[in-house]
Amino acid sequence: MVETMRWEQGKLVLLDQTLLPNKIEWISCEDYLRVKLAIERLEVRGAPAIGAAAAFAMALGAREVADKPDFLGALDAVRADLITARPTAVNLAWAANLQYELATKLNKDDLPPFKIIKALEAKAEQIYANDIAINKRMGEYGADVLPDKAVVLTHCNAGALATCGWGTALGVIRSAYAQGKLQMVYADETRPLLQGARLTAFELYEDKIPVTLITDNMAAWTMRTKGINAVVVGADRIAANGDTANKIGTYGVALAAKAHGIPFYIAAPTSTFDFSISTGAQIPIEERQPDEVRRFRSEQTAPEGVEVFNPAFDVTPAELITGIITEYGVLRAPYVERIKELKDTLSTI
Amino acid sequence: MVETMRWEQGKLVLLDQTLLPNKIEWISCEDYLRVKLAIERLEVRGAPAIGAAAAFAMALGAREVADKPDFLGALDAVRADLITARPTAVNLAWAANLQYELATKLNKDDLPPFKIIKALEAKAEQIYANDIAINKRMGEYGADVLPDKAVVLTHCNAGALATCGWGTALGVIRSAYAQGKLQMVYADETRPLLQGARLTAFELYEDKIPVTLITDNMAAWTMRTKGINAVVVGADRIAANGDTANKIGTYGVALAAKAHGIPFYIAAPTSTFDFSISTGAQIPIEERQPDEVRRFRSEQTAPEGVEVFNPAFDVTPAELITGIITEYGVLRAPYVERIKELKDTLSTI
Repeated sequence: MVETMRWEQGKLVLLDQTLLPNKIEWISCEDYLRVKLAIERLEVRGAPAIGAAAAFAMALGAREVADKPDFLGALDAVRADLITARPTAVNLAWAANLQYELATKLNKDDLPPFKIIKALEAKAEQIYANDIAINKRMGEYGADVLPDKAVVLTHCNAGALATCGWGTALGVIRSAYAQGKLQMVYADETRPLLQGARLTAFELYEDKIPVTLITDNMAAWTMRTKGINAVVVGADRIAANGDTANKIGTYGVALAAKAHGIPFYIAAPTSTFDFSISTGAQIPIEERQPDEVRRFRSEQTAPEGVEVFNPAFDVTPAELITGIITEYGVLRAPYVERIKELKDTLSTI
Repeated sequence: MVETMRWEQGKLVLLDQTLLPNKIEWISCEDYLRVKLAIERLEVRGAPAIGAAAAFAMALGAREVADKPDFLGALDAVRADLITARPTAVNLAWAANLQYELATKLNKDDLPPFKIIKALEAKAEQIYANDIAINKRMGEYGADVLPDKAVVLTHCNAGALATCGWGTALGVIRSAYAQGKLQMVYADETRPLLQGARLTAFELYEDKIPVTLITDNMAAWTMRTKGINAVVVGADRIAANGDTANKIGTYGVALAAKAHGIPFYIAAPTSTFDFSISTGAQIPIEERQPDEVRRFRSEQTAPEGVEVFNPAFDVTPAELITGIITEYGVLRAPYVERIKELKDTLSTI
């Protein structure tokens, strides 16, 4: 399986996902700003992968500010800057805040900065390893709810490349494949940045999992004509009522699934939940620059100056979601109650 | 307004639409096979434009076989070959058959081939001019059903470039704009061949009609967030029950419109109706080659050998269609009855 990132001699080495599937190149990040840039440029993307990268970035940032008189204040500035890289995925802030809280605690225990840095590195490595373990558990829960001879449609890339390995939605698909119950995956190419074509089709093809690539606008017709019996996608942020922000296009897929009576699942670790917001209306939706839509890499596809609407995400209302697959099992409606219970459980762990 | 084709000194000159919006180049067709190739390559596309091009191609073909002992038999072979160029749009066969019937009739009247050729040229020019007149009438009927401050979503290109001028869906939009009731058009880019980005955005931008380009997977979210109050698209073939084949993605747009309570209109001349088939299930759906999805022009976007599903069209069931805008007014449910009446009316004209 392809590797998304690795921690190597005090540097974060990231696979440059913008060049896939054409080139495999690695970016060596020696400071937190290079990680932030990689998140902005989507060289690393996918909510769980962004979370892990942010955890490593906090360790890098701590090293950079180790000699400041106000170490903790400087680290807080790093944290605040880092989380502006992308507004929608909650895992970014989740990981950065977690690292900052750890540093605060250790600072209170009078540990010197160099020891705090080591602890942040260890914590980042733990988040990384834990993410893979979480995905595998999620995969098992998810594979259980898929039908036999599953024909699954997925959108964007919620795979090994979106995480530290295995994947969320593609983790479910990998587990179903390992159990011999997966017949075919239809992958939406996912314009404008084609994560479905470049990353999902690439990952599954490399792993010899049966995959058929379609353009986004073929999803509804594929549901009608190709026997799709489940949709599984990832998530960037889930509100306390189950409303889910994910890659633009997810909402349209959910509407089409509903119209065909096809179950629609979200696969996401519990770090994706934002318990502080009651509905999806409060999720900030990142809008990206118009040339992503007017061009594709070197090719101009539309008139130079034409107006563009380019939201990177949309929000799928909870009522369109059959279940949310997490590392603690599958949540189903009524979501407000189930997510409240999840929050209470997590606070006791 | 951009010109799709013109008849010039016995040649059919076609705008090469595959190069738009980057280059404006013209293809000079001296024989019917070059027109057939242009239809196959989508250098000319859009059901009404294909119809007019086929009518001119029959005139070219007649000239090529004028010295054959069995002139009519040879022309029938041209007709049969021409209509294999693309299977879904009914206007292709409609125009080719119309020309062949005219030739048969004139042959029965003992007219020599050179006179029949002249008659076919005149008939093609008449189909061309008539298409523009039809579109303008359709535009008026369509503009009437649009709300004030119309915010319209459209898919693919059913514009001047898909017809001989003015357009079907974009004809409705042009007429609404001329009446001052159009606020904004959202244009789906329409993968894989990007007719929305390359042609619709280009046409409207050139004519200074307000247009915002989106990727196909943004349509549902745009409906939810941008106040879309009508969808208008073209058609490639309409069955006797109102089921409508149009560019892949239309069906998903229709489902999303339904979910948002947004009226969904087809704009198509009556030559688009195929009265011989009772439902959309009988419409042949062209599947095109996989590299259209795996690549974009010079850019590879997915693994070389990955499997692809690439239907060029889908079928929107009649129950999702609010109205079919024709040059004889707007048809509404029950479609079976209304389309039967239309057929009877047309047979008396």
